Amino acid sequence: MKIALVGVGKIALDQHVPSLAASPDWELAATVSRQGRVSGVEAFTDMTEMLTARPDIRVVSLCLPPVPRFAYARAAIAAGRHVMLEKPPGATLSECHALADLARAAGVSLFATWHSREAAMVDAARAWLADKTVHKLHINWREDVRKWHPGQDWCFEPGGMGVFDPGINALSIMTKILPAPVHLVCAKLSFPENRQTPIAAELTFTDGVSAYFNWDHQGPEFWDIEVQTDAGTLTLHEGGARMVINGAEQGAAAGLQGEYPRLYNEMAELVATGGIDMDLSPLRHVADAFMLGERVTVPPFDW
Amino acid sequence: MKIALVGVGKIALDQHVPSLAASPDWELAATVSRQGRVSGVEAFTDMTEMLTARPDIRVVSLCLPPVPRFAYARAAIAAGRHVMLEKPPGATLSECHALADLARAAGVSLFATWHSREAAMVDAARAWLADKTVHKLHINWREDVRKWHPGQDWCFEPGGMGVFDPGINALSIMTKILPAPVHLVCAKLSFPENRQTPIAAELTFTDGVSAYFNWDHQGPEFWDIEVQTDAGTLTLHEGGARMVINGAEQGAAAGLQGEYPRLYNEMAELVATGGIDMDLSPLRHVADAFMLGERVTVPPFDW
Repeated sequence: MKIALVGVGKIALDQHVPSLAASPDWELAATVSRQGRVSGVEAFTDMTEMLTARPDIRVVSLCLPPVPRFAYARAAIAAGRHVMLEKPPGATLSECHALADLARAAGVSLFATWHSREAAMVDAARAWLADKTVHKLHINWREDVRKWHPGQDWCFEPGGMGVFDPGINALSIMTKILPAPVHLVCAKLSFPENRQTPIAAELTFTDGVSAYFNWDHQGPEFWDIEVQTDAGTLTLHEGGARMVINGAEQGAAAGLQGEYPRLYNEMAELVATGGIDMDLSPLRHVADAFMLGERVTVPPFDW
Repeated sequence: MKIALVGVGKIALDQHVPSLAASPDWELAATVSRQGRVSGVEAFTDMTEMLTARPDIRVVSLCLPPVPRFAYARAAIAAGRHVMLEKPPGATLSECHALADLARAAGVSLFATWHSREAAMVDAARAWLADKTVHKLHINWREDVRKWHPGQDWCFEPGGMGVFDPGINALSIMTKILPAPVHLVCAKLSFPENRQTPIAAELTFTDGVSAYFNWDHQGPEFWDIEVQTDAGTLTLHEGGARMVINGAEQGAAAGLQGEYPRLYNEMAELVATGGIDMDLSPLRHVADAFMLGERVTVPPFDW
């Protein structure tokens, strides 16, 4: 299947392009980007132009930042294309609901991807927890924004979500592995005095679930989720790539693919079956945190 | 039908109690409140005690502030009672989804009320707009928090929503009368430097829709929504109580009841049919505004 990539930035080049190149299902047939391009692939700077010029491309994958994403998604759906969305699926919940309605009306597939849910041990964690009683779950998610989004000021502009940009990855795993849903009880969001989005967040959910996100963290990253249950403790490390149960490292399933190849496999299946996969629960938790959270001002952040 | 009121504060005494007293459908059989009570009605201070002592009361109406509301709603649903929620239906979107799931599983009715949607001319505005093309819609919603929530500090605490407490009334009308959904594009939220929630907000939605909310407004209130269409201008005044179309004042339907009596009529119907009415679109717009909005610090607010 031919596919177009829209938004050729860091995540597209690091993940999407190699995943598509390695897949037997997909052929990267065009890009749409103001500046980015992929060698050997037809490059457009205008979305409408691409949609008109390339009716043979039936699927569009959007890797833009969340704020401009809706307009591109709507244009693609209106042109009868299937659409795959990088996380988060939009800058607002309301636009995500609108997109799902538009896709349903147009009869095209729509996939709100959460790449961290495809990490090697997440399915295994979900399966192990399914019949356990969860007493506590704690997320410890710390990384250096300077390393992972160098100079990307949009992260700190309204709608950029700040530390929830990585934090929503943890929330996407949490909502996948927990046997029952939880909701936020209180939150503390730390806003640098010169920025519009938080650089750190402490979240307290119901049922013993909590999270700490920090984007101003030096040294090795922490991408850990520890779950205490009636059958002992399960810990996901490295964003779900590793799992330890009661001290014993668990092996991954043989032949398991990476996060983005798995997402593109799922998109191929969705297109084949005409499905829509638009789970908004991670984004809903983020919106809840902004609505319910206490705001604390912290020193300015500069690159 | 016997009903219990939980949370006997200003809104309960001003609206709920007289509406129930005037209705042939309802009998106010108990209250649950730390301090408030209604003369001649059995008064509890503990929810569990009321649910246990009064199995004859099948319906519970919750008039508490949003933050504590979930625990009471869950207890009532778990005890097999039908539940009616003051606006907004919760402090988070996630808990509202959870409540709807619980009510569905328990087979009880759940009603997220939006009293402003019951204002005299809102149904008429919706009907008139249904076949029009909307070019612009502007909400102008200004009132004095000192008059409408005197000394109620919870409004300015995390989860209290600030100016969105009245503003969500406008959004509940907007989402009812607009022929097609819109979503937020940008927002500016004004936070008093000594408070945790905004006292004013400017919202820009798609499709020419915008809103201005101000809670620090002296003098007569503005609760207006002006809609410019291909067939002229419709304006709702006084929170939907009055409607003007192309300069001509429109008359209300004869015998129309007030907002809260109409809500209790609808609740009686929902209970009779076993329905769930949980439209979260107004709260979703508020969450979107907090997530996407630019924060501006303004001078301190004091009562």
